[in-house]
Amino acid sequence: MGLEILFATTNEHKIREAEAILKNFGIMIKPIATEKIEIQHSSLEEIAKFAAIQAYVKVGKPVAVEDSGLFIEKLNGFPGPYSNYVYKTIGLRGILKLLEDYKDLGSRKAVFVAVVAYALSEANVMIFKGVTEGYISFNIRGSGGFGYDPIFIPYNSTKTFAEMSIEEKNLYSHRGKAFRALGEWLIKNINLFKEIKEKAYKGF
Amino acid sequence: MGLEILFATTNEHKIREAEAILKNFGIMIKPIATEKIEIQHSSLEEIAKFAAIQAYVKVGKPVAVEDSGLFIEKLNGFPGPYSNYVYKTIGLRGILKLLEDYKDLGSRKAVFVAVVAYALSEANVMIFKGVTEGYISFNIRGSGGFGYDPIFIPYNSTKTFAEMSIEEKNLYSHRGKAFRALGEWLIKNINLFKEIKEKAYKGF
Repeated sequence: MGLEILFATTNEHKIREAEAILKNFGIMIKPIATEKIEIQHSSLEEIAKFAAIQAYVKVGKPVAVEDSGLFIEKLNGFPGPYSNYVYKTIGLRGILKLLEDYKDLGSRKAVFVAVVAYALSEANVMIFKGVTEGYISFNIRGSGGFGYDPIFIPYNSTKTFAEMSIEEKNLYSHRGKAFRALGEWLIKNINLFKEIKEKAYKGF
Repeated sequence: MGLEILFATTNEHKIREAEAILKNFGIMIKPIATEKIEIQHSSLEEIAKFAAIQAYVKVGKPVAVEDSGLFIEKLNGFPGPYSNYVYKTIGLRGILKLLEDYKDLGSRKAVFVAVVAYALSEANVMIFKGVTEGYISFNIRGSGGFGYDPIFIPYNSTKTFAEMSIEEKNLYSHRGKAFRALGEWLIKNINLFKEIKEKAYKGF
């Protein structure tokens, strides 16, 4: 097949996770480094859409960007769209400190959200969202993954994301869901394009 | 005199503080509500500059915007440019929780920074910065001000900003310093403009 899509990111972990998903659809990823302009006071969807349009303007070709965040229920959704910045400043220990007084797992609910925005043009951006519910663990556990993976346990598992292989994490993860949705959409649309071409050829 | 400048904000506290400063320069403030587009992963200067240009594009006239943040030393600068979002989610109690293990005031250093960006055109933005050093208090104290004021004690005071009147806070505060710098610049430039006009009138 040989379908390849551009993915604007410099995060090696995101590239590997997206590759592991999209290869099942016969789609390759070409990572490109563009400066990602993120806007504040916005949902992940708006941030990803804005960034995808900026990336499209820069490269002049269809391009995917991804933005993700961890939303902790008892912290009113914190760190949310600013997960990256919060990770780099107060870190995992800061999050555990903030939840110190929540002693049972049921009170430590969190949601991981990933949004993949695929810009086909400046005006046409497809949005694929993946949501995974779970809990914040009591301790930092595991060495896989990145970011908040060592403190996030998805529903129906006892492991944190950082205790899973890429393949296992992808089964559960927000990013896995979002990239599967992108893969399905791409394959469906390739077939549509083919059909249209074939019909045109047959004179329909 | 009757000089008036546009200030793009909907924060009543910021309007009152800026008014109390600029009236000393004979300058009035006209607040306008424009949607403020803030970019992530940026310094306050970049955020304010970007927002000022957006506001200028919207109103077509010179306009000021202000952005401020609290940078806590032991938290690697957190909450920094995202002070607003952090305030609305984990709040003052979250900050005190994160600093719980820092038992002496000397280990609770923080810096309040305000940046006023005054866009004269899309390409010409003046930046006025005010910085105030201090400490994070052990408790929430006072009912004045807004935001992090009840937990910030500037150097050379024993009061939090929230325990001060607007006038007293303005003497110490980052915002006071930034708006005084704007006021001084405006007055200096008005005189320059006058001089140029007079010289032109006299045939120079």
